[in-house]
Amino acid sequence: MIYFDNSATTKPFKEVLDSFMKVSSEFFGNPSSLHGIGATAEKLLSQARMQIAGLLEVEAEEICFTSGGTESNNLALKGAAAAYRTRGNHLITTAVEHASVRESFNQLEKHGYKVTFLPVDTQGRVSPADIRDAMTDETILVSVMHVNNETGTIQPIEEIGQMLRAFPKVLFHVDGVQGAGKIPLNLKEAEVDMYSFSAHKFHGLKGSGGLYIKKGIRLEPLLSGGSQENLRRGGTENPAGAVAMAKALRISLEQRTERLDTMNEIRAKLMDGLDEMKGVAINTPLAGAAPHIINFSVPGIKAETFVHSLEEMGIYVSTTSACSSKKKTASRTLLAMGVDDELASSAVRISLSFENTLEEAKNVLLAIEKTVAKLGKVLK
Amino acid sequence: MIYFDNSATTKPFKEVLDSFMKVSSEFFGNPSSLHGIGATAEKLLSQARMQIAGLLEVEAEEICFTSGGTESNNLALKGAAAAYRTRGNHLITTAVEHASVRESFNQLEKHGYKVTFLPVDTQGRVSPADIRDAMTDETILVSVMHVNNETGTIQPIEEIGQMLRAFPKVLFHVDGVQGAGKIPLNLKEAEVDMYSFSAHKFHGLKGSGGLYIKKGIRLEPLLSGGSQENLRRGGTENPAGAVAMAKALRISLEQRTERLDTMNEIRAKLMDGLDEMKGVAINTPLAGAAPHIINFSVPGIKAETFVHSLEEMGIYVSTTSACSSKKKTASRTLLAMGVDDELASSAVRISLSFENTLEEAKNVLLAIEKTVAKLGKVLK
Ligand SMILES: Cc1ncc(COP(=O)(O)O)c(C=O)c1O
Ligand SMILES: Cc1ncc(COP(=O)(O)O)c(C=O)c1O
Repeated sequence: MIYFDNSATTKPFKEVLDSFMKVSSEFFGNPSSLHGIGATAEKLLSQARMQIAGLLEVEAEEICFTSGGTESNNLALKGAAAAYRTRGNHLITTAVEHASVRESFNQLEKHGYKVTFLPVDTQGRVSPADIRDAMTDETILVSVMHVNNETGTIQPIEEIGQMLRAFPKVLFHVDGVQGAGKIPLNLKEAEVDMYSFSAHKFHGLKGSGGLYIKKGIRLEPLLSGGSQENLRRGGTENPAGAVAMAKALRISLEQRTERLDTMNEIRAKLMDGLDEMKGVAINTPLAGAAPHIINFSVPGIKAETFVHSLEEMGIYVSTTSACSSKKKTASRTLLAMGVDDELASSAVRISLSFENTLEEAKNVLLAIEKTVAKLGKVLK
Repeated sequence: MIYFDNSATTKPFKEVLDSFMKVSSEFFGNPSSLHGIGATAEKLLSQARMQIAGLLEVEAEEICFTSGGTESNNLALKGAAAAYRTRGNHLITTAVEHASVRESFNQLEKHGYKVTFLPVDTQGRVSPADIRDAMTDETILVSVMHVNNETGTIQPIEEIGQMLRAFPKVLFHVDGVQGAGKIPLNLKEAEVDMYSFSAHKFHGLKGSGGLYIKKGIRLEPLLSGGSQENLRRGGTENPAGAVAMAKALRISLEQRTERLDTMNEIRAKLMDGLDEMKGVAINTPLAGAAPHIINFSVPGIKAETFVHSLEEMGIYVSTTSACSSKKKTASRTLLAMGVDDELASSAVRISLSFENTLEEAKNVLLAIEKTVAKLGKVLK
């Protein structure tokens, strides 16, 4: 089996599972309890918070644990929109965000906010100048993802952050779910105010995520309740999940140091191989994209058919993003990049982890070639 | 060590941890992925959904997985308030709800809703007639907890449900977090529209919970995003957490069948013992209360001091609820029951699981007696 669908979810590291088990079974207390069993759980939780903060180069109190990337995005966007409503009601984002960002904005529109969805260029990139031009007196927040989950395109976060210095009252949220642990981003230098991440995308466990919230920023909680997470998220905390996420992030960053070159080699191999293949169009930009995501189309073959055909050879990839894969419509992201409907309906995503090998990539290329030959009409 | 703080959180069953591990490591796919690895994860998720639905005697599609009790309560209350806003803007609840319900209503008040917080009697019980009398043309929802987390008082859910038959447009939400797996409640017969539960309260894992949402009820999602959970909650699902929760609920209900008599015996022993003790006042009603929660006050001794003193003898109990235990203020629930401030500030909660023994209860009584003698002034 070759698992090339790591942007949908990753296999948890063994060490991550071991930590989760240990904390869940031996240190099961409620971190809010007054007694020692509670205090031990609280200590583990705060160690995990410090470790994650250290890895992201921010302060521990700036990390808010959540149940995943979707919650982090919803909390950032709806929480800030509500808390800063008196400042204004205009929000800016792009046409290529993940459903959890897009739908949060759609919901905010229903509740009276004005949202600008900016276009992207043919590489899927938003222009900082467009953001600046969209700014009004009412603008309170800009949200741009770091790495696109379908194409791997990296957005110019640092540049946008610099540009936003001229607008000190406008918050900057970055959906970092596909970038965390893979693409370095100095949150302080890039002037990011909020940054979402999700453990299961970097070999942690589903159900754990986090939101970096820069000191001083107020958010109306999405989950009201007890005074957990500095009053920003009620509910009994999940120390086992937090410890497991901290470990996953640490190991991912270590793997990155050791294996980024290999991943780049694999990517180059795949990009070259796909480029040479007749009947295949690559949607991922050559430069300015993450090393772990490659998107291509095989016009004339439905993406779903392609995925199933590769699966018969023991290879797991996906159509667009996992959460919209069952909709069977053309990829919004690709359409926004100006890709035509046929190509956007036949897009396949390969996504790597640092554990994948060059050998696997070679086999995948062969399998893709076979599938194209078997199913496709040659257009190139 | 004697752990009598099971309403704060419980120790996960071994079988629950084993299931979690197995699913996380072997079936780690994203349930929304199109391929077989995704399909296996989706199958496990839907089996867990069916199992939980079966145990609660509802339909599988009526179960929405969440990250815990707090999220379930927030989703039910805010989700329904938003979805039914055109019907009206009045909401009814009680003065003794958990913080996640109380704070959700406080937030809804800030957003223009009108909320009636009904008083309770000296046993902590709300009157169905009071609810009926509070009803206006604008009322869209009533929320009453099943079992109070501080005193164990059981609310007359069935009676309220019957009464609400006359108001078919008013939704009925029940916070079942302390009742699930312990106090039977037929959701269909009681005409409950939404019912919250949380795995870590019945030996499941933190980070998993659920909301029963009766067929036909619309909720605006709290977590917008993909089309997971029937569009009621976006985000990559957590099959391992769901399978673990299903297992925890099943085992809890089995334990209940086998060990309820023992728990009742333990409760009687504790209630009698406390009743005979000079300087101790019992706050939990004798009848109409859950078997697993006993609340008592030792006037003159601060609750926190009492908890720490018992801890020195290896006994773990709590002051009020875990999530407000660090606030050190008098219990709102007890104040609402008419308990005076001194008693409400010195309240201690014992909470059992089906795994506790009569032997443990005897030791706890001795330890309480010692602590009262050591610290207390005798008032009785
Ligand atoms: C870019 C991006 N943002 C947000 C999410 C949502 O994360 P989660 O599945 O943890 O809710 C995903 C993954 O599905 C994603 O790829
Ligand atoms: C009655 C009640 N409702 C809701 C909750 C919240 O549940 P969770 O801690 O899973 O968010 C609790 C427990 O803290 C509770 O006792």
